[in-house]
Amino acid sequence: MSVYTRVEAAEVTAFLRDYAVGELLDLQGIADGIENTNYFVTTRGGAFVLTLFERHAEVELEYFLELMVALADHGLACPRPIMADDGSYLRRLAQRPAALVERLAGKAVTEPSVAQCAAVGEALGRIHRIGRHVHRRRSNERGPAWWRVTADALRGVLQADTMALIDAEIAFQAAFDTQHLPRGVIHADLFRDNVLFEGERLSGVIDFYAACNDILLYDLAICLNDWCVVPDGDFDDARARAFLAAYVSGRPPVAGEAAALPAMLRAAALRFWLSRLYDLHFPRAGEITHVKDPGHFERILRLRIAQPQRTAALWPA
Amino acid sequence: MSVYTRVEAAEVTAFLRDYAVGELLDLQGIADGIENTNYFVTTRGGAFVLTLFERHAEVELEYFLELMVALADHGLACPRPIMADDGSYLRRLAQRPAALVERLAGKAVTEPSVAQCAAVGEALGRIHRIGRHVHRRRSNERGPAWWRVTADALRGVLQADTMALIDAEIAFQAAFDTQHLPRGVIHADLFRDNVLFEGERLSGVIDFYAACNDILLYDLAICLNDWCVVPDGDFDDARARAFLAAYVSGRPPVAGEAAALPAMLRAAALRFWLSRLYDLHFPRAGEITHVKDPGHFERILRLRIAQPQRTAALWPA
Repeated sequence: MSVYTRVEAAEVTAFLRDYAVGELLDLQGIADGIENTNYFVTTRGGAFVLTLFERHAEVELEYFLELMVALADHGLACPRPIMADDGSYLRRLAQRPAALVERLAGKAVTEPSVAQCAAVGEALGRIHRIGRHVHRRRSNERGPAWWRVTADALRGVLQADTMALIDAEIAFQAAFDTQHLPRGVIHADLFRDNVLFEGERLSGVIDFYAACNDILLYDLAICLNDWCVVPDGDFDDARARAFLAAYVSGRPPVAGEAAALPAMLRAAALRFWLSRLYDLHFPRAGEITHVKDPGHFERILRLRIAQPQRTAALWPA
Repeated sequence: MSVYTRVEAAEVTAFLRDYAVGELLDLQGIADGIENTNYFVTTRGGAFVLTLFERHAEVELEYFLELMVALADHGLACPRPIMADDGSYLRRLAQRPAALVERLAGKAVTEPSVAQCAAVGEALGRIHRIGRHVHRRRSNERGPAWWRVTADALRGVLQADTMALIDAEIAFQAAFDTQHLPRGVIHADLFRDNVLFEGERLSGVIDFYAACNDILLYDLAICLNDWCVVPDGDFDDARARAFLAAYVSGRPPVAGEAAALPAMLRAAALRFWLSRLYDLHFPRAGEITHVKDPGHFERILRLRIAQPQRTAALWPA
């Protein structure tokens, strides 16, 4: 939406009076927020990100903040929400829910190394493990029900053969039994732009505003489809092997998970193909962000369907 | 005591299984602990300090850990205790209470700049403010009752005139009314070796293992006597002014606090003079740490008595 709510230094100074972070020294708007308004806030006490939430309900924000607190409590590198004097993490600024979180060092990488993939795999395993301590629940708003309504919305604009592939994949997923797969808190959007590195060291996992309760293996599949592929969408064996090995060291798989990975890789490709198609064909008012190529995830989906055994040898013995 | 409990990597690996911090990569003993055993622990998930507590009761450790968690929650740069899978911060290793905390970057400074003094002043104000959120209580074990027993222990070994100064100061402090002075959680040992800096930026306040509930102004006095003095113990005006101004910006003083500062500076000098005298004359078995010169705090006490108006002009208008 590229929403951008302007706040002035005087408003932020007043807002910060309810936090023990010290005097405001600098305030900088961050241009690249898509769904929220973000500011870099520097005080004498530290460096923070101030987020004004434009879209989510407060009950959802409480979930995201509980998760981020739990992850930070357990030592994961992620932006810690800062507690206000009244003990809350969520307050209001400019008529919007607002939160102050730690600002982390580092930057995103576009071409991750094997070591960086291992670091993300390990972090994902830790997120899934620590997620057990989150008491609130949030369903996945981009799950099978959303796939179906989105497919129906696209029915009038897509070619018949494209639509047939989508319908067939939705049917395949509906028939696929996921009862035995462990569920928990998933990040649901752990793409390369949501992990910060200082060199090979992972300095922060960010953007927990799609997190929800769903199948853990599906979250792993989202990551493998992004972190461990060559440009055409096929896996880079070394990165995929490193990612998987690091992941399972933190969250050991149960029986049947390795066998279910090919279906989850397809589900993950379908979900992002659908959202990119939707964003392309139904751009939101005021949208100025770069529309991402849906074809990338169509290619990934076709590859995953064609090569169901592709990950069998990459999964740790 | 220079206690040092050896633990092996295999024991630490087993200990870390109850934390979501990832695989142990490196373990290094830290030689300079005086009262606890400390190790640098590096895992794939981060860098930590593992402390085995040699002296404190578990109820005291719970207080220190609650304080450190509260300070980190509110955004103060300090070592965050890492939560174990069972939700606790305090576990056991090698028959001792043990805690894993974040390892912070930076190093202590011996000759602080004006800007560094301001940063410590601000951090102290924030500690006093955030301390309101700590529910546990701990009394000051180095308070007036301890001054008296320590003075009595020293009575047989000190010169008569030295002893007379100590007795007179204890009598002065006993007659000084502190009822109107705000109390709360104090660090109680915020000397230069307990603050880390990266350049001018304060990167961490450490060693909360003397923290207790006492007079806030007394904690400020401990700091001023260490951070803002020239070698003979007199104040460096620029550093003292910067420290005080930054402190009051975070924790505004109440009426009467400025007037009570001279007495608190004397109390703070007395407390550290007494402990240094005691350590010098009654060295503990196995003691190999460097004994610090008690004369430094005797000079400071005599200066503070001789110049009761010394800080009046330094306190912010």
